[in-house]
Parts: sequence; structure tokens; C-alpha cells
Amino acid sequence: MRPDPYAPSQLLQAAVEQFASLPGVGKKTALRYALHLLKQPQERVSLFVSSLDRFRKEVRHCRVCSMITDEEVCPICRDPQRNHALICVVESIRDVLSIEATGEYRGVYHVLGGVISPMDGIGPSELTLSELVERVKTGQVQEVIFALSTDMEGETTSFYLYKLLVAYPVTVSTIARGVGFGDDLEYADQLTLSKSIANRQLFTPNL
Amino acid sequence: MRPDPYAPSQLLQAAVEQFASLPGVGKKTALRYALHLLKQPQERVSLFVSSLDRFRKEVRHCRVCSMITDEEVCPICRDPQRNHALICVVESIRDVLSIEATGEYRGVYHVLGGVISPMDGIGPSELTLSELVERVKTGQVQEVIFALSTDMEGETTSFYLYKLLVAYPVTVSTIARGVGFGDDLEYADQLTLSKSIANRQLFTPNL
Repeated sequence: MRPDPYAPSQLLQAAVEQFASLPGVGKKTALRYALHLLKQPQERVSLFVSSLDRFRKEVRHCRVCSMITDEEVCPICRDPQRNHALICVVESIRDVLSIEATGEYRGVYHVLGGVISPMDGIGPSELTLSELVERVKTGQVQEVIFALSTDMEGETTSFYLYKLLVAYPVTVSTIARGVGFGDDLEYADQLTLSKSIANRQLFTPNL
Repeated sequence: MRPDPYAPSQLLQAAVEQFASLPGVGKKTALRYALHLLKQPQERVSLFVSSLDRFRKEVRHCRVCSMITDEEVCPICRDPQRNHALICVVESIRDVLSIEATGEYRGVYHVLGGVISPMDGIGPSELTLSELVERVKTGQVQEVIFALSTDMEGETTSFYLYKLLVAYPVTVSTIARGVGFGDDLEYADQLTLSKSIANRQLFTPNL
């Protein structure tokens, strides 16, 4: 048996193992990260470590929309400039960041924290579905936009949520799906292409 | 100007920035790492953070060979089974790990901590050259093997070190360079191929 190449230092081995626990990071990359830390001044590494520690310990979920935030209510939900009658329902924190990065959406969000997936043991009670219904119940919400994935779990969740919301006077919509802007038709998958024809819209020329 | 997509949480932003300071890690990957930490139990993240912190604070350089280690002298330099009269000179910690991973080398090491590179402000005094000379001066060393890179800086360092060592009764050698085992001649670069012919060795059949 070959000797462990990291044997010279248990501390190095522990650091490499920790980095290798990150998604998509193998032993070689983990070693690279660890040796990088070793070359940094002590204060830099202290800042590195304390930033990650504080992030995990202090970050919380917005009481309203479940987005992560440093306070009780997130800056989006606190912003009086945003349209609080328009709620975009997404699966994850990352989805909010993606939509915010466009800079175009001026409504608010509701982060479900996942989708209904019996295979993964995720039922409706694991998600923030009832919190969304409570928001709609206030009568302040005009429209709920579903921005969930189009796989089986996403569709199931959209349908389940629709059934919960249909009792209230609120418009339920879903984001447009179709051939992406700038994409060639020949490279679009058949489902996307056929749906983009079925869901065609009136042409409005930019004059 | 677009709003900062990470604005919902300064803590997230700080964590992403720290991860993005690792080599080869962009903002997207850093965000992925940060959100991964968020999904882990608090104890897992504490272990993650403390392992990195302890690594940086407690790891040290071997008093003999400058390899990183958890004690004053590294396990390789402490190992009575290894040949302490044979020293392989390398640039970095990583080089030691690579050679150790082969499991074939039974001598000891000397880690220079870099190569002479006036462009980067690295002169002989920044490296552990005099420490190597001290080891040779004891008279216990029979052979020093250079395993430095073949670029200008590596060659300069090898030559400088050779001049320092030539005064002592020690054999100075360098690792074999040539076409790799299993490599096709047609893909070898011209320098490697021509040197591999010039430095040919007697054929010794495996009987």
C-alpha cells in the first residue's frame, strides 16, 4: 500500500478534507486551496474563517419571504419602492439572486426552500407554502407568479400551490417559457419549440 | 446601474468574497460554496472553520527540511527507515507530496520555498539554500538530487546551488528528463525529444 501523501501534517490533511467537502471540490483542488491559505498572512486567514463562521451563525431567513437576510425582514420586503402586491414564487435563494441580477423585476418574492419531492422525503409541510397562503390571505396581494422548475417536482408544486391559492381573489401566473432570446431554433429542444409556438404572443413592433 | 445581486445579506456577500479569494474561484463558485455551508448543520460548519483556522495557526515548517509539519521535525526527517544521506531538493511542499505519492523514493527532502527569481524579488536569501549547505556540511550527506523546474529560474537556482555545494564531498545529481513512460514520440516537444536521445542510457532488459 502506498503511504498517505498528506502524512507530513495531520493539520494539512484535516484542512484538505474540509475543503474537499465543498461541492465539486476534489482532493487536488482542496490541497491547492489549503496551500493558498498557508501563503496568506495570519490576519487574512482569520478574516476568511470568521467571515464564513459569522455567515453561518448570524444569517437568517426573512420573516416574510424566507430569503436570507441579516435582519428580521430582508431589504427587498422592507423596500417601499417595490410592488408588494406582486409576489414571485421561487424554489431557492439562488433563484432570487438570479432574478435580482436582471434588475428588471420590481415585485417581491417568496422562497419555498425547495419543491415537493416524495422521493427525497420533501412534503408540503417542509416548504413555506402556508406562509405564502397567509400573505395572500391579507388581501394585499394581486398576483402570484410561479417561477418554479418545469420538471415533475416543480409542476407538482405549482399545481399544489395553485389549488391552495385558487380560493382567494388573486391572479396566478407563471413565467414565460420558450426559445431563449438569441437562441437558434435548430438547437431548441422539441418540447420548448412546440410550446413556444403554442404559447405565441401578438407581435408588438418596437417603433 | 444594476443593483448588487447579493444585497439581501452583507454576511452572504462577505462569505462569497472570502471564497472568491481562493485561487481559481469566481463569484458563482464562491456563491455555491457559501450556500452549501448554509445547508450544513452548525457543527459541520464549525468544524470546517476551525480546521482551516488551526491549520493556518499551528502548522509549521520542519526545522530540518522546511516541509510543513505539525511538530518541530517532520515525520519524513524523523523516520529512521529513510536514507538521510540522500536529499532531494524541491521548490515546494506540493512537490514533496507528489514524490511521496509515488511511494518509491526512500531518501529525505529539502524544500527551498521557491526558486531564485529577481523579477519577483526572490533572491537566494529568501530561500532555504544556506540551510541545505548546513546539512551537507555535517558530512552525513552523500548525494543531493535536484528536482527543480527546467525554466530559467529553476536552472538559475540549480546552478547557484551547485556552486554552493561543489566545495563539499557530495554527489550532485538531477532527476531524469525525457519522453514520459507511455508517451508517444510524435507528441513529445522537440527539446524533450532531443535531450532524451542525447541523455540515452544503456538498455537493461527485464529478464
